[in-house]
Amino acid sequence: MSVAKVTEIIAASPDSFDDAVRQGIARASETLKGITSAWVSEQKVAVENGQISEYRVTMRVTFILGD
Amino acid sequence: MSVAKVTEIIAASPDSFDDAVRQGIARASETLKGITSAWVSEQKVAVENGQISEYRVTMRVTFILGD
Amino acid sequence: MSVAKVTEIIAASPDSFDDAVRQGIARASETLKGITSAWVSEQKVAVENGQISEYRVTMRVTFILGD
Amino acid sequence: MSVAKVTEIIAASPDSFDDAVRQGIARASETLKGITSAWVSEQKVAVENGQISEYRVTMRVTFILGD
Amino acid sequence: MSVAKVTEIIAASPDSFDDAVRQGIARASETLKGITSAWVSEQKVAVENGQISEYRVTMRVTFILGD
Amino acid sequence: MSVAKVTEIIAASPDSFDDAVRQGIARASETLKGITSAWVSEQKVAVENGQISEYRVTMRVTFILGD
Amino acid sequence: MSVAKVTEIIAASPDSFDDAVRQGIARASETLKGITSAWVSEQKVAVENGQISEYRVTMRVTFILGD
Amino acid sequence: MSVAKVTEIIAASPDSFDDAVRQGIARASETLKGITSAWVSEQKVAVENGQISEYRVTMRVTFILGD
Amino acid sequence: MSVAKVTEIIAASPDSFDDAVRQGIARASETLKGITSAWVSEQKVAVENGQISEYRVTMRVTFILGD
Amino acid sequence: MSVAKVTEIIAASPDSFDDAVRQGIARASETLKGITSAWVSEQKVAVENGQISEYRVTMRVTFILGD
Amino acid sequence: MSVAKVTEIIAASPDSFDDAVRQGIARASETLKGITSAWVSEQKVAVENGQISEYRVTMRVTFILGD
Amino acid sequence: MSVAKVTEIIAASPDSFDDAVRQGIARASETLKGITSAWVSEQKVAVENGQISEYRVTMRVTFILGD
Repeated sequence: MSVAKVTEIIAASPDSFDDAVRQGIARASETLKGITSAWVSEQKVAVENGQISEYRVTMRVTFILGD
Repeated sequence: MSVAKVTEIIAASPDSFDDAVRQGIARASETLKGITSAWVSEQKVAVENGQISEYRVTMRVTFILGD
Repeated sequence: MSVAKVTEIIAASPDSFDDAVRQGIARASETLKGITSAWVSEQKVAVENGQISEYRVTMRVTFILGD
Repeated sequence: MSVAKVTEIIAASPDSFDDAVRQGIARASETLKGITSAWVSEQKVAVENGQISEYRVTMRVTFILGD
Repeated sequence: MSVAKVTEIIAASPDSFDDAVRQGIARASETLKGITSAWVSEQKVAVENGQISEYRVTMRVTFILGD
Repeated sequence: MSVAKVTEIIAASPDSFDDAVRQGIARASETLKGITSAWVSEQKVAVENGQISEYRVTMRVTFILGD
Repeated sequence: MSVAKVTEIIAASPDSFDDAVRQGIARASETLKGITSAWVSEQKVAVENGQISEYRVTMRVTFILGD
Repeated sequence: MSVAKVTEIIAASPDSFDDAVRQGIARASETLKGITSAWVSEQKVAVENGQISEYRVTMRVTFILGD
Repeated sequence: MSVAKVTEIIAASPDSFDDAVRQGIARASETLKGITSAWVSEQKVAVENGQISEYRVTMRVTFILGD
Repeated sequence: MSVAKVTEIIAASPDSFDDAVRQGIARASETLKGITSAWVSEQKVAVENGQISEYRVTMRVTFILGD
Repeated sequence: MSVAKVTEIIAASPDSFDDAVRQGIARASETLKGITSAWVSEQKVAVENGQISEYRVTMRVTFILGD
Repeated sequence: MSVAKVTEIIAASPDSFDDAVRQGIARASETLKGITSAWVSEQKVAVENGQISEYRVTMRVTFILGD
């Protein structure tokens, strides 16, 4: 019976929220095997001089624990 | 005095969250008349081999009940 | 010791949620100096004749209060 | 062993929140048999020219499913 | 330095939510001295044969503890 | 593309929650143009000598920002 | 691209919460095809004469909408 | 017009969550008459040496206040 | 098998939130035996003439019910 | 019948959360008359090189609107 | 002064929610020493052909960090 | 594009909540580099013989993941 773990990461992109999600999954996949899904819990933008400098997402990433 | 109903659907797209919203509204409009709005309650991605395979949104769709 | 204020705005775009966020930050920056970030608290679409007419976001915008 | 279903409706009245609840129950009873209760989840007013034009309630209506 | 206690009651009325609140405060005042306020946490109606039989409110009543 | 702002007010009435909502909208309309709606976030009563002295509502009032 | 729907039911059992979940899924499967999962949102017991008479669960049942 | 009260208890069992609920109702019924229902708000296990030593539930017990 | 009860109190101090917690525990211990813990659910300050007059905490106090 | 307004501020201090609250109230009182209370909604610390550099609180400040 | 860590896992069982909790604790104890408790945050069932195929629980497991 | 991780810890102090936060950050900094902030999600006190024995805080600690 497999058990999964949930870890929370914050990823960012200068372009869009979707891209921030992609960046986060790409980075997480470098160290975590068996990622099955990620749930977006927060979306925030950083602003500098009236312009959006960064799209930030907080994600809860689920991955299967090896036996 | 019109009464509206709220129904919850989960739609998906291989491309983006926005497209998943569009897919959901398009499918819901096939069977529901009088849709006025939809509220995004959840955003989740499915991941396979370190890549995002699907963008999923849960939406609460409001439509006017005919008399 | 600086103090920041949080104000809530609702912005819209016919194109996408990201664009609605950009519109909101642009409009808020016209009247508010020192904006540092904005947190997306709600995402909603308006629907007319089965088509998405507007992407709406509710954002909590943080800006530094001048001394 | 009976099973009940919960459906969400939005009802309105020009007069009061209580009346909006009554309108909602009356309309729901036209199509749903076995309604046992309704839980008020949201209360909102629409405003035109500084005056309340409509009292709106969102309700979760519970009704017994026939066997 | 006075300390207050919070107790939760559910009160009902055949007429309205406001009246249910009044009934609840009246009953609570019979046994509790020093009530200062009550916060409405839930509003629900009981329905029989398509008609509202009872307006129910859940309230958190705050009262000052005697020394 | 219009942007709206959300402001939070607390209004009171000796008579009822509905009247407290009306008082709040009336007062807000004196200083705010373009109010479109208000969402009731809290309902509380103040109690003196076992009697309700005030019905208080917390409302989030949405109004359109002029260009 | 499949779209799923979420419906909320309340099921009961005299024996246990797990059994109430089973009863609910069994009843829902009589009328709904393509059920994939159900999320338990509430657990409540009815009590008569100091004894538990019924275990009740509220579940949000997800099922795939046919094309 | 009856008024009910809600009290919160934490009950435990070495065997299961359902049994912890039963223990809680049994103990509450020793001192409280007119219990009508109990809502499970939390489920927690205590762990010792890698084994579950106790199943704990937090329940909000509703009982009718005598006149 | 012991059962615990949870009661909610509001305590205050002119000096600090920590002191308000201490005041609340001290007062509760006068009438309640077997207190094991208290969870801080709210922190609020009262303000008079631009100065903090009182630090208030709402606490949920857990105590073991005697057999 | 007075109406109050709620505004949200974020204040910081290098020393403690209580001091951050005091700083926030002091700054708010420079521009706002009739502050009655403030509710602490968030507590966060900024960390640099393993040391707490700042205690930050988010507060919802209530003040009476002049007639 | 000991510090504890909280990690989130998802465990499953074909038989019951309680068994899924046991499976999760057993698996977590293989890699984590000093587990003291686990809080059940979600309960979900997977359904295949109208039958429950898996009982899934999400748990937040607390364990003491070694010095 | 840096990615951050969020981990949850529980820290305690016999003296105050602020000190418990300091203890937690100090302990976390022993094993985690790049801590940027920590958000206090819970505050609880343990009580023995009517006295506060421990101030406990649950914190969500954010730290930058190395590339």
